[in-house]
Amino acid sequence: MKRWGSTIVLMSSIIFVLAKSGAAQLKLSENTEACLSCHSQLHPGIVAEWKKSRHAQITPGEAIKKSKLERRISAETVPDALAHHIVGCAECHMMNSEKHQDHHDHNGFEVHIVVSPSNCLTCHPTEVEQYGKNLMSHAYGNLMNNSVYRSLADSVNGIQSFENMKTRIKPPDPETNLDSCIYCHGSEVKVKGKTSRETTMGQMEFPILSGWPNQGVGRINPDGSKGSCTACHTRHQFSIEMARKPYTCSECHKGPDVPAYKIYEVSKHGNIHSALGKGWNFNAVPWTIGKDITAPTCATCHVSLLVDENKEVISERTHQMGDRIPWRLMGLIYSHPHPKSPDTAIIKNKAGLPLPTELTGEPAPMYLIDSKEREKRKVAMQKSCLACHSQGWVDGQWTRFENTIKTTNEMTLTATKILLTAWEKGAAKGLAQKDSIFNEAIEKKWVEHWLFFANSTRYASAMVGADYGVFANGRWYLSKNIQEMMDWLEFKLQNQPERKDKKKEKSK
Amino acid sequence: MKRWGSTIVLMSSIIFVLAKSGAAQLKLSENTEACLSCHSQLHPGIVAEWKKSRHAQITPGEAIKKSKLERRISAETVPDALAHHIVGCAECHMMNSEKHQDHHDHNGFEVHIVVSPSNCLTCHPTEVEQYGKNLMSHAYGNLMNNSVYRSLADSVNGIQSFENMKTRIKPPDPETNLDSCIYCHGSEVKVKGKTSRETTMGQMEFPILSGWPNQGVGRINPDGSKGSCTACHTRHQFSIEMARKPYTCSECHKGPDVPAYKIYEVSKHGNIHSALGKGWNFNAVPWTIGKDITAPTCATCHVSLLVDENKEVISERTHQMGDRIPWRLMGLIYSHPHPKSPDTAIIKNKAGLPLPTELTGEPAPMYLIDSKEREKRKVAMQKSCLACHSQGWVDGQWTRFENTIKTTNEMTLTATKILLTAWEKGAAKGLAQKDSIFNEAIEKKWVEHWLFFANSTRYASAMVGADYGVFANGRWYLSKNIQEMMDWLEFKLQNQPERKDKKKEKSK
Amino acid sequence: MKRWGSTIVLMSSIIFVLAKSGAAQLKLSENTEACLSCHSQLHPGIVAEWKKSRHAQITPGEAIKKSKLERRISAETVPDALAHHIVGCAECHMMNSEKHQDHHDHNGFEVHIVVSPSNCLTCHPTEVEQYGKNLMSHAYGNLMNNSVYRSLADSVNGIQSFENMKTRIKPPDPETNLDSCIYCHGSEVKVKGKTSRETTMGQMEFPILSGWPNQGVGRINPDGSKGSCTACHTRHQFSIEMARKPYTCSECHKGPDVPAYKIYEVSKHGNIHSALGKGWNFNAVPWTIGKDITAPTCATCHVSLLVDENKEVISERTHQMGDRIPWRLMGLIYSHPHPKSPDTAIIKNKAGLPLPTELTGEPAPMYLIDSKEREKRKVAMQKSCLACHSQGWVDGQWTRFENTIKTTNEMTLTATKILLTAWEKGAAKGLAQKDSIFNEAIEKKWVEHWLFFANSTRYASAMVGADYGVFANGRWYLSKNIQEMMDWLEFKLQNQPERKDKKKEKSK
Repeated sequence: MKRWGSTIVLMSSIIFVLAKSGAAQLKLSENTEACLSCHSQLHPGIVAEWKKSRHAQITPGEAIKKSKLERRISAETVPDALAHHIVGCAECHMMNSEKHQDHHDHNGFEVHIVVSPSNCLTCHPTEVEQYGKNLMSHAYGNLMNNSVYRSLADSVNGIQSFENMKTRIKPPDPETNLDSCIYCHGSEVKVKGKTSRETTMGQMEFPILSGWPNQGVGRINPDGSKGSCTACHTRHQFSIEMARKPYTCSECHKGPDVPAYKIYEVSKHGNIHSALGKGWNFNAVPWTIGKDITAPTCATCHVSLLVDENKEVISERTHQMGDRIPWRLMGLIYSHPHPKSPDTAIIKNKAGLPLPTELTGEPAPMYLIDSKEREKRKVAMQKSCLACHSQGWVDGQWTRFENTIKTTNEMTLTATKILLTAWEKGAAKGLAQKDSIFNEAIEKKWVEHWLFFANSTRYASAMVGADYGVFANGRWYLSKNIQEMMDWLEFKLQNQPERKDKKKEKSK
Repeated sequence: MKRWGSTIVLMSSIIFVLAKSGAAQLKLSENTEACLSCHSQLHPGIVAEWKKSRHAQITPGEAIKKSKLERRISAETVPDALAHHIVGCAECHMMNSEKHQDHHDHNGFEVHIVVSPSNCLTCHPTEVEQYGKNLMSHAYGNLMNNSVYRSLADSVNGIQSFENMKTRIKPPDPETNLDSCIYCHGSEVKVKGKTSRETTMGQMEFPILSGWPNQGVGRINPDGSKGSCTACHTRHQFSIEMARKPYTCSECHKGPDVPAYKIYEVSKHGNIHSALGKGWNFNAVPWTIGKDITAPTCATCHVSLLVDENKEVISERTHQMGDRIPWRLMGLIYSHPHPKSPDTAIIKNKAGLPLPTELTGEPAPMYLIDSKEREKRKVAMQKSCLACHSQGWVDGQWTRFENTIKTTNEMTLTATKILLTAWEKGAAKGLAQKDSIFNEAIEKKWVEHWLFFANSTRYASAMVGADYGVFANGRWYLSKNIQEMMDWLEFKLQNQPERKDKKKEKSK
Repeated sequence: MKRWGSTIVLMSSIIFVLAKSGAAQLKLSENTEACLSCHSQLHPGIVAEWKKSRHAQITPGEAIKKSKLERRISAETVPDALAHHIVGCAECHMMNSEKHQDHHDHNGFEVHIVVSPSNCLTCHPTEVEQYGKNLMSHAYGNLMNNSVYRSLADSVNGIQSFENMKTRIKPPDPETNLDSCIYCHGSEVKVKGKTSRETTMGQMEFPILSGWPNQGVGRINPDGSKGSCTACHTRHQFSIEMARKPYTCSECHKGPDVPAYKIYEVSKHGNIHSALGKGWNFNAVPWTIGKDITAPTCATCHVSLLVDENKEVISERTHQMGDRIPWRLMGLIYSHPHPKSPDTAIIKNKAGLPLPTELTGEPAPMYLIDSKEREKRKVAMQKSCLACHSQGWVDGQWTRFENTIKTTNEMTLTATKILLTAWEKGAAKGLAQKDSIFNEAIEKKWVEHWLFFANSTRYASAMVGADYGVFANGRWYLSKNIQEMMDWLEFKLQNQPERKDKKKEKSK
């Protein structure tokens, strides 16, 4: 056993740690002291980050005494065992380790590698519960357990080969999936064995994890829970400032499929943030409109508790972001009312496909929220708008936005009709031929139509991002794509009969 | 009448407002006090912004006493009625309301919603006058009253449908235009009726505005004036810091059609701004090169009053940005000498099209500035360059830039010749067929040639933005696009005769 | 001779300069005093920048006394003539001027315009020597002296014309090259004559430089040396803060061909930098992980001297960045082991092409580092990772990264096979026809395959940039491009025979 050896190192190290942090009064648990005795030297970066965190500044017992508006802990009580120490390494990595498949003996301590929402909920139960009802927490299954979506992912990540004038595609290997879609959606983290490694502390044994590292929003953790709080609340500083800044959202919401951050950046709101945000207070809880910030970031409208200077609540905090979102703008073929359940793999349209609309756009109503719920969510969202804008302004903006949902859906229907014609006339192979609907060039143009161009146009409308609705992956591309799909179809059809004729001639 | 009720609310509110702002000495007009009595609670965000503004810190009467270089007011005198109060809500929203179509009785006050340059000119007449001679102030008409440009907009924003193997396009609805091109170009704001709304102050009547909200640079206001100062001087802080930072320009100048901001960002100047700009003084008037900033932002070269540390003027302030721009780089088929008039809808080339050049590139000289004026503008622009660079450096850069204007025009001519051939040979329908020149796939490739790739290459040259002249929408795409246009034409021509033959056979 | 006249101006100017800088104790050399006497008024911007530089704060004689970890000077001694003055204009622009082709008499002083690494090495010999072994210092020749790469550049920068249904391309003019590839790769700066210019100091003579201005990383200087330190250490502040911030790298590493900065920006590391970097210390030498920064920038992993809070070295400083790079990810057709020599124009594959792999992907081993050297470099790189991450985390990441190298190479092989087939079947003209392999549409699609999409996917994997490996120029485009290349080939082959038939008919 190495424990005693470590404990000797511990003594001098702790003194160093505390002296450095200038926080000699910090109440560390004995276990966390033991962690720091090695890791403050082995991993100085994360220890230094943690020391800057709120977790390292205040005990849960003190934190819970704050007024309701100021509290960052949503638990009514915290367990006595946790209340009197700051939240250090051991408080998370050793909490209920026995429930975590990746728990292991680490130098005499029972620890787990992957901290999960089930650990965080000890102090933050409301957030964990709300987040569990959010689409994001189901992002793994919503992609991997939906046959249509899985097939899209396979068509992107699969490796293609070429022989005899034909291409073939083989299913993607797991590492490619992890490096691609799953990076944001979240992986399934499992223990697949053990390994022994020579370390500065001697030979030690560690679990080997598949799907690791990963911080995706819908990660399936080794304790069976879903989600990764550190996707947004970055380890080990867990800075609310960082979660509230738009860069956090941009990690996953910046590409052509979901250009939310880019649109924010060129919006008036984003401009104000870029130019004047340096003087804002991103750490205040609650967040006071006008005093702390003078324009919204992503978190302002979608997550945070907002008050005015009289501490009147403008918007409640929510980690179930769908609460304020009547329409689903992205990721699906047509924009449609938001799904009722965060688990969208359960949806089936009339045609039997796991999609919230038919291929021709009609919604699958039993899985989607109704107009009453949409109205409620619209009102909830507009509360933050109305802190700076008149109702007339907001109504004008909303009318334009819902019109754009309608017109982009119309443009997608047109592209879809061209694709359906291509399938019918044999220019491409689709559902009837039991072929992937994502693997041919015309199908890929169709995917870009809704996944890139219609999405971008709608987001630009929602967040007022100008050119992202026009020339930057907006209407210009919707318009051009239809003409290019038409040309493709025309070329293909004109050349098709000849091929058959030639074959016939040959067989004569 | 609700006025007395409000006045009671007013008393306690004013105390709150002033206590909060820590500016009890602020000289509010009585009307502004009345506005704040409600709106500081209804719209805490904008009131807080305004309190941070210079408008809320100093009366025009005090401001006008500053030395000429330091003055931000260009009026020789300010009306006595305005001189002794700070500039609050009422000073703008109630100024000459009778001239504004959107004026209305608002709780006993005559207010208008849309503040226009005609209001701002009371204190800032030089800026309003100069801006009126700027292309930007005419951005609405230059798009909507130019038949070629209008037709481009229609081809982008119109909704396409598909039936019987043909696509059709219907003209865009007004909401789509507002959400698209018009967002930056500016809308025509008109009163289209009245509505009554239940508010926290009881039932109230408001005008319904079409084209609202909008802050586009060429907005047609309800008082008939053109432009929107808040496009760049964002309400309600009107921060000069914000107008001088490049993010403001990026709201409209970031997409592939006009990638000025993106190019700035990767230029050496942009790099210096990103890395070291946090220590710069963006609020100083005049702006001292070297002391306040060590590299330019957009405003530095195009707008601001620049001095050296001895207060010697390097560049005069101008809101007629064209004053320093000899060549028009963007938006048109060919780069050409800058137009004489900000109203470009008056231009007609020899072919009768409202374009500053022929389709083959020859300029329409009577509408464009001559070489003498170009030289004058070049010298004006280079004044800011020469504050940090030698004449040899600047000459080297300028030679390269003008060469790039020439070569990108040549590449556009090549693309145009391919298109003209497609029209001649019947592969596409163009001017002779009285068809839109923007609606077919080959035409859209042609548009991207000049609107995206040639523009990007020229901007990259002007502002030294490296890859935006090469692989990031630069020469790579110019080169590739020509080959793709050729292939398209070849495929189309090869397949065309057969179609006709088949049709003949059918008709036999 | 104007020298005496200037000296009179000098007296008052110096007083001004020093008073302004608040650094009356600065020990200026007599020559630098003379420079400043005019240039502080002529070029206030650069003089102000220089005054903020470390060069203007401390003499080399003082700087060299610092402890080894803190020293920014790598020379063991500095020449006595330089030791006792701060480093001003003359110390660089007059150092060994006789060796510089661009030296000239300037108002009685012998100066050269282009300061080169040969000047910098007086105080910074280790950095200059290391940089000389870096690919970057050979960036000019690696492009211009490699026939394949030169041909790619020509295909991008050459001007195409259209006549008789054919396009032609003429070689690019020098100004276009300077405005394009050469901007980053570096130009060849040569004296091509002299010019006389009227200046504020009267008529003066200056050398005319070709290839100027340019700050490219592999610039060939008028003294024959290679490289430009100011590419990253921007004149005249030479701020280490700036060099360490990612914006500097983004000047050249942001486009679709090398999207390193964009990927960093959306990575977790980039997010931490964007959100919390404002509180970091970018000026400290050595750079302390945890204390000065809590996440890496480009420089952290690739260049800088890193220590922990106990001053234990984590990574040594290097300006030979390849030292930590086992695999070359970008710019070439296939990713492959890093080249041994920074001069890659010497490489020849088995097919006789100046490429580090065959067209089918097999490496040219004698020019590339072996597995032992790759292992060494991997360990060197991972040192910075391990300051914050466990070995298990890092191994998981690295496995994924090397898998992505393999799969992207497979996808490139597939695209290459399609192109080889197109050449074989006469659908396009390639090596066998002694035609450019970059000038036809299908060839350009092939170039984008590896130069944009495979590169982006690999970088996204290396730096964990999510969507840049999927929809933002990642696997989505690899997958789509193969299908589009297939369609192109199919269309071309189907139409080919007919053309020949028609020609035969005509000739009958």
